[in-house]
Amino acid sequence: MSAASETSSSPAGIPAAAAAGDQHVIGIDFGTLSGRAIVVRVADGAELGTAVHEYANAVIDDRLPATGDRLPPEWALQEPNDWLEVLRRAVPAALHASGIDPATVIGVGTDFTASTPMPVTADGTPLCRVDGLAGRPHAYPKLWKHHAAQAQADRINALAEERGEPWLARYGGAISSEWEFAKALQILEEDPEVYAGIDHWVEAADWIVWQLTGDYVRNACTAGYKGILQDGAYPSRDYLAALNPGFADFERKLDAHIGQLGERAGTLTDAAAALMGLPAGIAVAVGNVDAHVTAPAAKATAPGDMLAIMGTSTCHVMSSETLTEVPGMCGVVDGGIVAGQWGYEAGQSGVGDILAWYVANQVPPAIHDAARAAGRSVHEHLTELAWAEPVGAHGLIALDWHNGNRSVLVDANLSGLLVGTTIATRAEQVYRALVEATAFGTRVIVEAFAGAGVPVQRFFAAGGLLRNRHLMQTYADVLGMPISVIGSEQGPALGSAIHAAVAAGAYPDTVAAGEAMGNVVHDAYVPGPEAEPYDALYREYRELHDLFGRGGSDVMRRLKAIRRQALAGAQQPAAEVPA
Amino acid sequence: MSAASETSSSPAGIPAAAAAGDQHVIGIDFGTLSGRAIVVRVADGAELGTAVHEYANAVIDDRLPATGDRLPPEWALQEPNDWLEVLRRAVPAALHASGIDPATVIGVGTDFTASTPMPVTADGTPLCRVDGLAGRPHAYPKLWKHHAAQAQADRINALAEERGEPWLARYGGAISSEWEFAKALQILEEDPEVYAGIDHWVEAADWIVWQLTGDYVRNACTAGYKGILQDGAYPSRDYLAALNPGFADFERKLDAHIGQLGERAGTLTDAAAALMGLPAGIAVAVGNVDAHVTAPAAKATAPGDMLAIMGTSTCHVMSSETLTEVPGMCGVVDGGIVAGQWGYEAGQSGVGDILAWYVANQVPPAIHDAARAAGRSVHEHLTELAWAEPVGAHGLIALDWHNGNRSVLVDANLSGLLVGTTIATRAEQVYRALVEATAFGTRVIVEAFAGAGVPVQRFFAAGGLLRNRHLMQTYADVLGMPISVIGSEQGPALGSAIHAAVAAGAYPDTVAAGEAMGNVVHDAYVPGPEAEPYDALYREYRELHDLFGRGGSDVMRRLKAIRRQALAGAQQPAAEVPA
Repeated sequence: MSAASETSSSPAGIPAAAAAGDQHVIGIDFGTLSGRAIVVRVADGAELGTAVHEYANAVIDDRLPATGDRLPPEWALQEPNDWLEVLRRAVPAALHASGIDPATVIGVGTDFTASTPMPVTADGTPLCRVDGLAGRPHAYPKLWKHHAAQAQADRINALAEERGEPWLARYGGAISSEWEFAKALQILEEDPEVYAGIDHWVEAADWIVWQLTGDYVRNACTAGYKGILQDGAYPSRDYLAALNPGFADFERKLDAHIGQLGERAGTLTDAAAALMGLPAGIAVAVGNVDAHVTAPAAKATAPGDMLAIMGTSTCHVMSSETLTEVPGMCGVVDGGIVAGQWGYEAGQSGVGDILAWYVANQVPPAIHDAARAAGRSVHEHLTELAWAEPVGAHGLIALDWHNGNRSVLVDANLSGLLVGTTIATRAEQVYRALVEATAFGTRVIVEAFAGAGVPVQRFFAAGGLLRNRHLMQTYADVLGMPISVIGSEQGPALGSAIHAAVAAGAYPDTVAAGEAMGNVVHDAYVPGPEAEPYDALYREYRELHDLFGRGGSDVMRRLKAIRRQALAGAQQPAAEVPA
Repeated sequence: MSAASETSSSPAGIPAAAAAGDQHVIGIDFGTLSGRAIVVRVADGAELGTAVHEYANAVIDDRLPATGDRLPPEWALQEPNDWLEVLRRAVPAALHASGIDPATVIGVGTDFTASTPMPVTADGTPLCRVDGLAGRPHAYPKLWKHHAAQAQADRINALAEERGEPWLARYGGAISSEWEFAKALQILEEDPEVYAGIDHWVEAADWIVWQLTGDYVRNACTAGYKGILQDGAYPSRDYLAALNPGFADFERKLDAHIGQLGERAGTLTDAAAALMGLPAGIAVAVGNVDAHVTAPAAKATAPGDMLAIMGTSTCHVMSSETLTEVPGMCGVVDGGIVAGQWGYEAGQSGVGDILAWYVANQVPPAIHDAARAAGRSVHEHLTELAWAEPVGAHGLIALDWHNGNRSVLVDANLSGLLVGTTIATRAEQVYRALVEATAFGTRVIVEAFAGAGVPVQRFFAAGGLLRNRHLMQTYADVLGMPISVIGSEQGPALGSAIHAAVAAGAYPDTVAAGEAMGNVVHDAYVPGPEAEPYDALYREYRELHDLFGRGGSDVMRRLKAIRRQALAGAQQPAAEVPA
């Protein structure tokens, strides 16, 4: 039965199955701090109930709970039991909230943060659950934001460049320290015993599916973007041995059946069904990543549709029928977003993060007080004040590199910049300049795709920053393109539900399922009269971008080096600073 | 009688005349918002009593008090009666506070803001006191910070450069809109009737002396720095006529007897004596400027002694026996600081101003609260936090151009810059980067003097920023030179008193009087171990300085142009911004 055809046969757009015969799917979105379950109607994507479960251990970045031992800087682990609790608590709660009969659920889909890889035994047991290993930090899942494998990543990139490894260009010229290879190499070099005990080095995205189905299926998305699987092959044994002789057979820990997005990974086991209060034997979709899974939820699946998931940082995903190399992209993967198309990913390292930093650190009491008096958040208040002025009246340009720059410069040693301040500059004007900088950063990425022969045809947006209408209008003006916005506040969970529906056979593929179940407001923002003055400011941004990012001035990189040296010196008692 | 010889004859440094035979002088410092009188002992410079009178009209920059008419933007006027009230109130109050017998006062000296020129009749009556002119804004004194004559200044500079006028190089290549010519030309072009009524275009510094003595003597300092009097001549009639035919005979409004600093301008009239409660007939010193008058008060009068008066902005004055052209200086004037030496002046447009702007606009509530809880000012609190880290640990560099750059770039269209920010950057780190930027800016000036063949031999400091010891130590480290600091909190008023003593014949010249009456702590700050790491940061500052200040990137200038255009557009109702 195809729910899609039922929908299309319905008069006045009301789904025919809006009565007793409705079928449902569950989408589960595993985020950084919590997991969300959502109950969705297969026929039209209606979101009927949702529930969120916060992880008890959140991000483990200070002390290992099992021992109380302090972790080194830049570490970030998670506790797998926290994810299982999402299944146990959030799914039944969402079902209860929806009021549906659980027997009408035909499939489950999931998405996860990535790359969040973990060491497990042959049967999928996390090493941190194995006797004697609970006190070993390397036995735990490494959350995406574990940044302690930078040294390994640097060597991975230097060696790949030196040897001319063909896969490097598929990642914009740089493999991230967040991904599977650098994190695994860190284990080998820091705790070889734990490394030796790894049977599978599994993305959490796939481990959670394994818990649901009893089978390990590796999803094409993370295998490609985070696991360097290109054209069916991983980096060569020779290359790995040159990195570290003990790393030569790393592929054995990665090897698994590859599942395409939207495929059925298996069926729900009795145990998992009992845990969640769902029927056993229903379809479970192949695992997925929070950003990529959202594309069909926003109906952004046609070639040339770029979807920006705008939050703390921004992730850009776009499918295309063409394979090419876009400078500074995060990766291009066959079936990385939609099976059968090349999936491109790009990213801005700091967006909402920068605005949050600014509000916490650079906004004076008077603004906080006024926002409180006006009954709105400081972000809202700054926005209202700042956008009362015409474009360019603040006289400022910022570079949005406070977390470094991923696309298109791929340089973590870049930093934020603000130029044009005077003693008349007000806090809200700087806030606006920062927002504009992130929009300019997006335009640089859009132009890089066009320059590489895979132009963005339509621009879509999802994520928490959609709430700021002035910000969104600014993006439309700066890009000079209409922006279509997702109609759901739970994009990833809805996307997972859509993949569940496909896995259950309700739709032929994720594109068709997205058309029926996704939710988008087309052209919610269109470029207005401010597009032209923003053009002038963008030229200034572009000049600074190239000046500091492409070698005109290396001051940012040198300041980071000076900072590292100063802090290293400060740790030696001899170098104490005179009062 | 020479008090200096009396002092030198005194055992154990106690002045011989510390008893009944003491002589005294009065110094009066006319600032932007108030005037301060001080009673000083001639023998040793002891400050015996002081009093401050706030101007009733402060700075007239919104509405003209006489009519309530609104003034255009960038205007700044003053009311001469406010200055006379300082004589009437502050001088008797200071005398009273000192407990001395007024009959022991042998002289009066004054200093003033500059350039603060005013239109007066032949007998010195301000035009704003002339019947029918009280409602004419151009009839009032134009305070130094009246910035509405920029268009005239631009023409003055462009024409001088075009014609190769020889005096232009004496001003670092630019005549300021704050000075006598631009402000007078503005009157001619905006209110020719007032212009026609001007018999003398007088600096307030000289007008106040005129009120004390009944005679107009033009001081060499403002005549040179603000009135373009070089080698005994003003700009030529030809040049003036080319600016505006009606301006050809402007020299007639400037011409007056030139008095050297420390000379006696005349004696106190009966009326002025009665106003202040002083003996008639005592010496009155030639007028002077707040910054320049301070040099002998800090004993910074030897060739190569640079004195930085560090407050809202910083003014650098240095005497030398050599005449040369220092790029970007404000001016070089024969006898401009000490009679008989070439007086050099340079300046940083924003120093304390930038820090005040930062505290008011970019410091979050938590810091304000913590400062309050610690019982210290926000400036003090930020300083304590920021200097707990080693040099360079903040990873930041700022350019201190929030008010533009006077020396050495002479460009009001430059602006502030901050580079190196990350989402770990804290407010106190930016504060420190701003302080460091002002120190780097001073080093650029010191290096420019060395490069021009008039090296700074000793560095002295006065002004409100002396209170911040970390700031002062940073300046010593950055300059790589010891810094001697003035020992008085009333440097300009003490300097005026010193000039009064010379005018009264108590000392042969201001150098000798300064040695006896001035107050300095030599080498209060010496370069420490942080001088070397600051060198590395200074190289980064220098790179950015040249990049944005010398044509590498014109983004700052273009942003100012964009801003002006945006604001001009916003004033037209048609260009309203959509919500």
